[in-house]
Amino acid sequence: MQNQIKSFQNTRIKFLNQLKEKSRVRKKEKCFIIEGVREISLALKGDYSITQIYYCPSIISFEEASTLTNQRDQKTSIFEISLEIYQKLAYRSTTEGILAVALAKDLDINSFKLSSKNPLILVTEAPEKPGNIGALLRTADAANLDAVFIANPKTDMYNPNIIRSSVGCIFTNKIATGTTSDIITFLKQQNIEIYGAALQSSQDYHTQNYTNPTAIVVGTEATGLSSEFLQNTSQNIKIPMGGSIDSMNVSVAAGILIFEAKRQRNFIK
Amino acid sequence: MQNQIKSFQNTRIKFLNQLKEKSRVRKKEKCFIIEGVREISLALKGDYSITQIYYCPSIISFEEASTLTNQRDQKTSIFEISLEIYQKLAYRSTTEGILAVALAKDLDINSFKLSSKNPLILVTEAPEKPGNIGALLRTADAANLDAVFIANPKTDMYNPNIIRSSVGCIFTNKIATGTTSDIITFLKQQNIEIYGAALQSSQDYHTQNYTNPTAIVVGTEATGLSSEFLQNTSQNIKIPMGGSIDSMNVSVAAGILIFEAKRQRNFIK
Repeated sequence: MQNQIKSFQNTRIKFLNQLKEKSRVRKKEKCFIIEGVREISLALKGDYSITQIYYCPSIISFEEASTLTNQRDQKTSIFEISLEIYQKLAYRSTTEGILAVALAKDLDINSFKLSSKNPLILVTEAPEKPGNIGALLRTADAANLDAVFIANPKTDMYNPNIIRSSVGCIFTNKIATGTTSDIITFLKQQNIEIYGAALQSSQDYHTQNYTNPTAIVVGTEATGLSSEFLQNTSQNIKIPMGGSIDSMNVSVAAGILIFEAKRQRNFIK
Repeated sequence: MQNQIKSFQNTRIKFLNQLKEKSRVRKKEKCFIIEGVREISLALKGDYSITQIYYCPSIISFEEASTLTNQRDQKTSIFEISLEIYQKLAYRSTTEGILAVALAKDLDINSFKLSSKNPLILVTEAPEKPGNIGALLRTADAANLDAVFIANPKTDMYNPNIIRSSVGCIFTNKIATGTTSDIITFLKQQNIEIYGAALQSSQDYHTQNYTNPTAIVVGTEATGLSSEFLQNTSQNIKIPMGGSIDSMNVSVAAGILIFEAKRQRNFIK
């Protein structure tokens, strides 16, 4: 058997660990690590190149691991790793047994092309928690949105916590990142109505029309949207709240707004 | 100065620690621990009796702590604790400086009284993660629901993680717990339509009418609703999904369903 790795001192293993831990290394090397069968499958579906597979034969067979490789152009290298090494590298318990290295995509908004003439887009500004980004991406996948833009992200999108909490939806959405300014410029150039979730000068969300090209923009739970975004919205919208506290979970609020837009569009893509 | 506690061996401190850690002790003693100014305020607003306050004077003043006590019937005992003890007991960092002991309410569905003639109710069956319960309770508070029923809960509702993740909405909602069977019986006796979130035999959620007495029932992300609940729904409903994966975060899905009902009711309580 070839390509067996049993030592933590192996250069490849050290590199995997760095990809997992360090945003700086992911950016410099333009690649990242994916854990889990479903996540790797979704990355392949999302047209990511998988350059390397690391599998642990006591958990997953070589045959199954081999199916999670690029079928076309690029060859994927497959390595066998020991259970000890796998457990050190993996976030989850021992149920998956597979890790992959994939090439990062260029997510810059300045390279982004919209494919729909009547897009419905979610914009999230300065999201902090990977868990919230993950939940937003799951919702965006379910709604089959035309794009998700992340303005001023606090981390790179290939952070393992984002991949995990999105259950792979980071790969299935059409994602772009950029400064708030770049994203506003893009939306305006494409004549997309900008609906900002905000309490200031806002209308109840369900009274507005989202059947034309629409971007729904949400900020952070703590501070909401930046003044730069607020100065550039077409209309601010709010969810009427009747309770004792005045803030909802940001991914729940985004889900309510997005699916009201979907409802108005009769769920037609 | 009276009532200063400086030792971890103090009987009250040992008891606080048990209230924090052990569901069994909370159930037996019929009381629980609350951390934070906002949470204690919401408990008072929700008509909970605060029997004891523990404050750390290097973080919060005696005067401020004293405002977080029952103003009427029952007297609240106030104790000063050292920073060291506070940090040992508190979940969060040193920003709050206050803990309380409150009396549990009887949450049994069999003692529950609905105050609305046209209620909108959320039912969550066998929720597992305190974080999901917390997010559901925040959404229920925002929607000012008439009740939240938790069927077959996996933990007691006064688990500190639920209090924390609900940011105190555990106290502002009208909550009842019981077996699935008890909750179905209650809903049927009150002639409440039962809309179960499920893929089987379901209609798109936005095609249904929620303006009559309505319960929206959600199960777990992993296994959905129990067959017992599925056999007793008036109608199953689903959110049309257009993406690559087939599951949404349960609190996002519940938010979408609840706010469609609120929209149909013109947000009138």
